[in-house]
This record gives sequence, C-alpha cells and structure tokens, in this order.
Amino acid sequence: MQLSINRESLLKAINLIAKAADKRHNMVILGNIKLQLSESELILTASDLEVELTSTLKLPAGACVEAGTTTLPATKLKDICKSLPAQAQVNLATQANERCLLTSGKSRFTLGTLPSEDYPSLGNPENITPLTISRNRLTDLIHKTQFAMAIQDVRYYLTGMLFDVSQQQLTTVATDGHRLALARSVINVSADLNMQAILPRKAVIELERLASELGKMLGDQDNAVTLSFGREFLQVSLPFGDVDSAGQVSQDLMVTFTARLIDGKFPDYRRVMPSNTDKLALFSQEKMTDVLRRVAILSNEKSRGVVFNFASDGMVEVRANNAEQDEAVEMIQAKYQGEPMELSFNAAYLQDVLGVIQGDLQMHMSQSNASVLVNQLNDEFHQYVIMPMRI
Amino acid sequence: MQLSINRESLLKAINLIAKAADKRHNMVILGNIKLQLSESELILTASDLEVELTSTLKLPAGACVEAGTTTLPATKLKDICKSLPAQAQVNLATQANERCLLTSGKSRFTLGTLPSEDYPSLGNPENITPLTISRNRLTDLIHKTQFAMAIQDVRYYLTGMLFDVSQQQLTTVATDGHRLALARSVINVSADLNMQAILPRKAVIELERLASELGKMLGDQDNAVTLSFGREFLQVSLPFGDVDSAGQVSQDLMVTFTARLIDGKFPDYRRVMPSNTDKLALFSQEKMTDVLRRVAILSNEKSRGVVFNFASDGMVEVRANNAEQDEAVEMIQAKYQGEPMELSFNAAYLQDVLGVIQGDLQMHMSQSNASVLVNQLNDEFHQYVIMPMRI
Repeated sequence: MQLSINRESLLKAINLIAKAADKRHNMVILGNIKLQLSESELILTASDLEVELTSTLKLPAGACVEAGTTTLPATKLKDICKSLPAQAQVNLATQANERCLLTSGKSRFTLGTLPSEDYPSLGNPENITPLTISRNRLTDLIHKTQFAMAIQDVRYYLTGMLFDVSQQQLTTVATDGHRLALARSVINVSADLNMQAILPRKAVIELERLASELGKMLGDQDNAVTLSFGREFLQVSLPFGDVDSAGQVSQDLMVTFTARLIDGKFPDYRRVMPSNTDKLALFSQEKMTDVLRRVAILSNEKSRGVVFNFASDGMVEVRANNAEQDEAVEMIQAKYQGEPMELSFNAAYLQDVLGVIQGDLQMHMSQSNASVLVNQLNDEFHQYVIMPMRI
Repeated sequence: MQLSINRESLLKAINLIAKAADKRHNMVILGNIKLQLSESELILTASDLEVELTSTLKLPAGACVEAGTTTLPATKLKDICKSLPAQAQVNLATQANERCLLTSGKSRFTLGTLPSEDYPSLGNPENITPLTISRNRLTDLIHKTQFAMAIQDVRYYLTGMLFDVSQQQLTTVATDGHRLALARSVINVSADLNMQAILPRKAVIELERLASELGKMLGDQDNAVTLSFGREFLQVSLPFGDVDSAGQVSQDLMVTFTARLIDGKFPDYRRVMPSNTDKLALFSQEKMTDVLRRVAILSNEKSRGVVFNFASDGMVEVRANNAEQDEAVEMIQAKYQGEPMELSFNAAYLQDVLGVIQGDLQMHMSQSNASVLVNQLNDEFHQYVIMPMRI
C-alpha cells in the first residue's frame, strides 16, 4: 500500500471516525484504524464491535501509488497527522516486517501495523427498513432524550435508546427506571409500519456527535438523513465533503455509521405515562432553573432530593435537607390548579428537563406517590416522566 | 453575628480565598471559612495549615448589624453566594443550636456552623525580612520556574520553590532532581542581605494565582508587592478593592497570604549549573516546538526519551522510539559549534522550557553524559538545566 495525500483531507477523514477505535479492547487490533486503498478511494474503518465508523474518501489522480490494505494505531496516526504543518503532503507506504513508513517534509515515522485480514467486520444490516428524517429533527429526538438513558444497569436495554415507529411517527424513548424522556416526530412512512429498535448508549452518543458535526459544517442548513434499520444493525451514511456556495455538501467524503442494536424488550413506555393527572402547575423555566440551582446546593449529596409543597394559591415552597441538617427553602410562584400537595424528587431529573426545553414548564400531577408528567407548555412532542421519591 | 451585605462584595471576598479551605482535611473545621465581623470590617479566613488566606473587607455603615464570629462550610457558602442573583442583598445571622441563617430575596438557607474558637491559626511571621518587588517580576520568577518543582518526593524540600537572596538579586529555583529551573531579578535590598526560604508547592501555586488575578484586574498596570519573610512563614498582602480611573486599586478589600515555609536545606543550585560547556547549539523556538511535538508522539510513554544527534554542519537529527518499536525521526537545522555528539533527554523537560521562553533556544553542552544548560538567546536571567538520560 502506498498513498500520497494532503494532510487536511486525511486528518478530517480520521477525526470523524477515530472515536470508535478502542485502545483498551481485548482485541488489540481494535485500537487500530483499517486502511483500504484503491485507485479511486481510501476507506478508513474504526470499530469497537458495537459501533463501526468508516470514512470513504474519493482520491485525486496520483494519490494512490499502490493499492493495498493495512491497519495502523488510531491514536498515534491521528496525533501524527495533527502535528504536521497545515497543507503538508503525507506519504504512507507499507514496508516489510509489518511496518508502515509515514513521511512528510523532514519528518519520518515508522509505525507497527497489524494485518488487515485480522480486522473484524461488524456486519451490515439486512432486511432494511429505511426511515428518512430531517437532520435537525433527528438531532432533536436524540438530544432531548439521551440524558435519561441508564449509565449502567443489569437491564441492559435501559442503557440504550428506543427508536419506535408507529402511526407514522418516530418516537425516541430513554429511561433509567427513575425517569423517562420521550420525543416524537412525524415521519413520512406507510401508515402500517410498526418497528422497534434499541440503539446502545455509545452508538446514540456517536450518532448525535456526527449529526451535530455535520450541522456545524452546514450552519443553519438542514438536510435529510436516512436511518437504515435492520434486524441486528442500524446504518446511517452522512456526507462530509466540502460545502459549496449553495450550501450543498459534496459526497467526496462519506461517513458510514453502523451500530449493533440491543437485543431486548424495552419497557412499554405508553403504560408508564401518567394518566388521570388532575393537578397542573405552570412555572417560568428561568425562575425554576434558578430556584433549583440554589435549593439543590443543600440537598442530600446522593439522592439530590427536593420537596415541592404546592399551596392552593399557587405559592410553591421548594425545600431541601442534607445529612448535615443544612436546609434550603425558597418560594416560587406557579399557576396552579388543584388541592394542596407535597411531592419530592431528585433535583437533577428536573434540571435535566429544564436544560432541554425553551419555554415555561408544566407539571401534571395526581398524588404524592405517583409519577409526574413534565413538559414544555404547548409542546406535546416532548414528554418527561419523573418518579417521586420518599424523603 | 449579623451581617447585611451586597452579594458581589461577599462573593469576591470568598472567591479569592476559598481555594485554601480543605474539605478532606482530618480537622473537619478546615473545610469551613471563618467569619469575623466587626463594625468596620469583615475578615474571612480559609486555611489548610500550610497556606492561610484572609480577605479583609471594609464595610459600609449598617452592614454590621451585630458583631461576632462563626465558621461556615466553604464550598456551600461559595455555591450559595454564586447562585444568588446579581446585586442581591445577603443577610447572615447566627442562630441558637450552632446554626446560621442566610437569607436573600425569597431564599432561606440554614447552615451548620462550627465554633470559631476551634478554628486553628497558622501564625504570623516574626523577625521579618521584607522584600519589595514589582508584581510582574514576581509573577515571572514563579511562572518560569514552578513547572520544575517535584510533585511528590521524600526529599520534601524538592516539592517547593527556593527563594534565594544574595548580591542584591532574588533568585527562584525549582528542581525535581532531573531538571532545574532558575530565574533571577535585581531587587532593591542592602548588599549584605543573604536569605534562603523554601515555599511549598501549594503556596507557590496560590501566590501565583493571586498575583495573576490582581494582574487581570489591573490590565497592564504593574504594582509593587512586599514579601515578608520570617523564619517560619512568608506573608504577602495584596489589595483587591475596586480599581479607580487612574488604575489604582482600593484597599477596601485586602487579601493576606500566609504560608508555612519548608524547614529543610535546598540543594546548592550553583554547583548544579553546568560549567565547561564547549558546545553551543542555537535553535528556532518555533521549529523546535513543532519537531518535539511530532517526534515525542512515538517516544516511550513513560520516559518520553528523545535522542538529539548533532552533526558538525549543524544538522540535528531528533529521534524517538517506543516499546512497540515505532520510530520517529526528524531533521532540524541549528547553529552549532562543536564536535558531533549524541544526547538524550525527556522531551517534556525541553517542552516545559520552550513553553516559557519567547525567543530562540540555546543549548550549552559538554558531553553525552553531562547535564545541559538551556536558555533563551541573550537572556541570562532565566536558566534551565536538564540531565541527560540513557536510552
């Protein structure tokens, strides 16, 4: 394999995928990036067998000196390309003895390689159900729910995000068993399509990162994204080439994201949504954010519990105590319809919701020991459920 | 104790000292800030028995409702003041049962206190030797040497910085046994004053932080700082009040820094300075920085060793190898006077020096196994010694 390429092209192709490589994996080769060079394109692959990212870069004439494949240590390759001067020409040539020589200007780097035949393939989705959605909506669906995924849980399906298609809507749902976040968007599919898939945590984060990187390149400009769901995999291809004056991205650099889906049954989120809520409180988002930031300082370090005490006149007392008997109390005015009641929950759960809404906050409640439905006023497309806690 | 004060004044006085409090200290009270309120001023103290910082804040009439003292948890007090709205009025009142009530607007916080009588005093310097120096020079002396202090060492004196006065110069020296950094400045003291003091690592960092905070407030304007060295302590008082249109800082807020000196004998740095160096190399700072950044990528992760190979024509080969047999080589042009020679050292030591100089880099050498004197061209006031390593 012998390649001669501009630093900027190579670095961009590496940067977009390198996060998927896993230096600490049992399979040492997963700390490497696979390079496949042909006359017309360079394909770079990084994977941890859960998420696989590939960059496919169209090459100018003469870049491919000798077609071939190899694998190179991901971090070192990235750091070297980063450290070279802007617009440098980078030459890569495999040598005998499983070495690869990288030269650029007066610099020479000899890197150990591992045989590309040993690099495992994640696989490709079969029996694909394609869903096309605007990138901004996809980012919204992920961003406004991902914080509710469990970080570690024996119920492995809770460490991922449910993608649910029914009634011509795509719904994303995340829950750690204590709170749930749900976002919906109308999509253009046949009315009888029903589908569920659970995307693991790392894949959710990588997909959001890629979508937001593309967003940064395109400014305000939106574009359509196709999610190809198979039985075992989700695959998404995104263009990352240069942006022309009309705001169109060239396909000279394509990034393909492939993730293994979680094989499990996600809880029926419809059954978790509180019904029969007869009490409704409306808060200013800004004021509630400020009050919680203050009161939570003296909440229990572990449980982060805060107590809301609703009076029938709409004055709400927010209170917290910690193990050292410190106490914080603050009054906040709400528009409140209902009997007086007291309700406790983890301040962080409400703060997470406050972080993703852009308007006044609604709390739909029934009683102290029942879960609360939280949403932004006049927004039925994003819903949050928070379980109360005993303090 | 009862106090009514503007949030901004209180927060500034707390922020400047809170870092000295130590939540993890065996003496629980050191996680607290001591408050001493009199009619005219509020004194706040934070300490870990190695460094003590106090803010002395002049109070407007009416701020002191009832004089008194108490101690309050440092982090909670800081977080609460930070979380209150700008320009809020903050009321603090000690209660029965070792509690203190903090109120502001609709917020009420009840905090546990500890008795101020139990708060330990670090002590004050006696038999003071005062040294007056410009703040910019003091910052330079500390900033350009502090990276060479040992982080942990049984030779406890190496974890601090030597302040050495002789021949009407103040010299700061730091060394971890592998490299040494030295900075000198002429000061206005009597010709026969000789003095040595070792300031511990945390104190060095706090003093640099305070001096640079003051620098930020004053912009380019310099001011004089008096270092009061006693046998056991160093004390420095800095004004932090409002800055007037002439660039003068008011003394309405004074911060006093007191640090316990390290009781030990610092190595004789004069004996460590290489003499008889018959080889001299001159490098561009920028080029050397770039070359080292690249070559060090493939150096041994632990030793960070790089080899310099000087040819008599001034071409220098910089080379590194790691445990995986990767290799990086780059040529750099130097102005070199001397025989060909090879020299190895830890890349990080040279990178630290490159990070604090502003011009071309000189290396004064004698032979492969002897230490190297490094400095900036035409700057004899900052000198660096790097021990070679065997690779």
